[in-house]
Order: sequence, then structure tokens, then C-alpha cells
Amino acid sequence: MNQNSPDFPLSGTEALLSVFRNHASGITIITSRTTQGEPIGFTASSITSLGSNPPLVSMNIAQGSSSYEHMSPGTKVAIHTMDENTVDLAIRFAGPKEQRFSGDEQVGPFELPILECPSVLIGTVRERFEVEKNAVLVISAELASEEKVANRPLVYFQRGYHVIGDRIADNS
Amino acid sequence: MNQNSPDFPLSGTEALLSVFRNHASGITIITSRTTQGEPIGFTASSITSLGSNPPLVSMNIAQGSSSYEHMSPGTKVAIHTMDENTVDLAIRFAGPKEQRFSGDEQVGPFELPILECPSVLIGTVRERFEVEKNAVLVISAELASEEKVANRPLVYFQRGYHVIGDRIADNS
Repeated sequence: MNQNSPDFPLSGTEALLSVFRNHASGITIITSRTTQGEPIGFTASSITSLGSNPPLVSMNIAQGSSSYEHMSPGTKVAIHTMDENTVDLAIRFAGPKEQRFSGDEQVGPFELPILECPSVLIGTVRERFEVEKNAVLVISAELASEEKVANRPLVYFQRGYHVIGDRIADNS
Repeated sequence: MNQNSPDFPLSGTEALLSVFRNHASGITIITSRTTQGEPIGFTASSITSLGSNPPLVSMNIAQGSSSYEHMSPGTKVAIHTMDENTVDLAIRFAGPKEQRFSGDEQVGPFELPILECPSVLIGTVRERFEVEKNAVLVISAELASEEKVANRPLVYFQRGYHVIGDRIADNS
């Protein structure tokens, strides 16, 4: 078998998109504030733990996104986890920018806009690695809201929001 | 409200771990081959799309993991998506190293070990950003197996494997 194998007929962008149609990812909302004090926020499906000691998180962002210029090292951010009760927020923060903040946010540490979600992690952008038209952000985790018993978290799959279903195995 | 707010009582590592208990992540298996030709593989919950043009994927890895030395720029890797029918593989590739490959793998492009999974993405490690004791890998996506209709993909949540459940909203 070689790289022209009939078992691997897809290449490049088509290969990536096809495989990610079979992959689910957890949903969060990221909020922050511009240097002018305006609240910003967006729904993100790329938040991933990068290590617990020191506590670090990574996320991916397109350099073309309107939030990109604000997400530079030193910026404070709030990462909100989502569940079935907050799917309306996930949809709103993936929609038109001018409709995202409707006055239902609180003001949290560092003046961050805080939404009503199962849990909130506050941190500081520490590094930004640019790769082609995108970037990987590394965020230092600093503070979190009190732990609540989670409802079923929200995941993104095939262009829609899903709750998670049955537990079929433990990590033994 | 300030950073000592009673609404944000957790800090540091405790804050990170608490919030990620409310977050689900998609599961994959990564395989590769050492320069000596030995197959290596592990279950990973950090595979994330980084951009589609050019097609890029990111993943996070601990520098202390046994696979780390092999995952350097230029290394070919196969990323396998998982579903409810392949949870036994996910468990096996998170378990003892000597039990991961049991002879049921195929040999794919670039001699990569290929497991029977819903879809497989083949690529090359392009960059490795080291951060504290961890690293972010950027992988160029190159080839993929033919697209199949996915079963419910596997996600990791609260130390166990789950299938995804009901679709509750479209991304309109």
C-alpha cells in the first residue's frame, strides 16, 4: 500500500473536512473586553486543556475573525462551559455581533462580561502562535466559579448542537 | 466585583480541573511509527481543527509522554475518529502500551498503522510549540479515508466515554 492507496482517496482540505464531520467537539463561549471597554464574545469549539501544572488551556482562532486583534498576550478572558440549558446563548454568540450582548451579562473579575452558564474559567492570554491564517492561543487559567453538578454538556457535531448521551465505558 | 469575588472561589489548577469537569471533548486515536519502525499509538482528546485552507489540525501533548520524542516535525501520523462501535479501541489505546497493537491494524500510506475506525486522516507534524511541560502540535492534513456516514461519535466527559445524544439545535 502506498500514498496513492484507493483506501485514502481524499486529500487536502477535502480530507480535513470529511474527517471532522465524524468528530464532535465541546462548546464554550469566550468573553473579553476591548481596550475601549466594549464587551466582546464568541462561541468556540476549540477550547482544550493543555496541562494542569501550571494550569493552561489552548484555543484556536482565525486571524480574520473580528475578535482576533483583541486576543493578544495579556488579555483577560472568561471561558464559559455550556449545557443543554444554555444552547440559546451558544447560538446567540455564534450569530450577528450586534445581537450577542443583550444586557443579561454580569460584570465579573477584571470587568469581564460573565454569562449565566454551568461554570466559568477566567484566565490571561499568555502566548499566541500564528500558523498560516490562524493562531493557537495559550491561556493561563487563574480563577473559576464554584463547581456545580453539570448537566449534560453541549457538543458540536455535523453543524448542530447536541447534548451528550449515554456513558458507555469508564476510563479504567 | 473584583478578582477576590466570592463568585470565583477557585484558583489555579483547581479552577482548571473543576471547569473541565463540565466540558466534553471528542476522542481520537493517533498512530505513528518510530524511526526504528515500531508502531506507536495513543488515545487523544485534544484533536482540533485549526484551519481548512491550508488544512491544519492541532493537538496537545505532554512532554513527559512516551510518544513525545517521536512526535517531532516531519513525523507522519494517522488520526482516527471514534464512534460507539470502536470504544474498545479507545480504551485499549489509553491502556498499557504493550497491549495496544494486537495485530488487527492494517499498514497504510507511509507505513502508518491503520485501525478500523469511522474515518482516518493522515498528515505530517509541521510545528511543535513547547509551553511549560506540554506542547501544541500543528499537523498538516494530507489524505483521508473515504467518507462514511458516521455513527454517533465518541466524546470524553467526567472520566468516561459517552456517545453523543440528541441534536437540540442547528447552527443557523
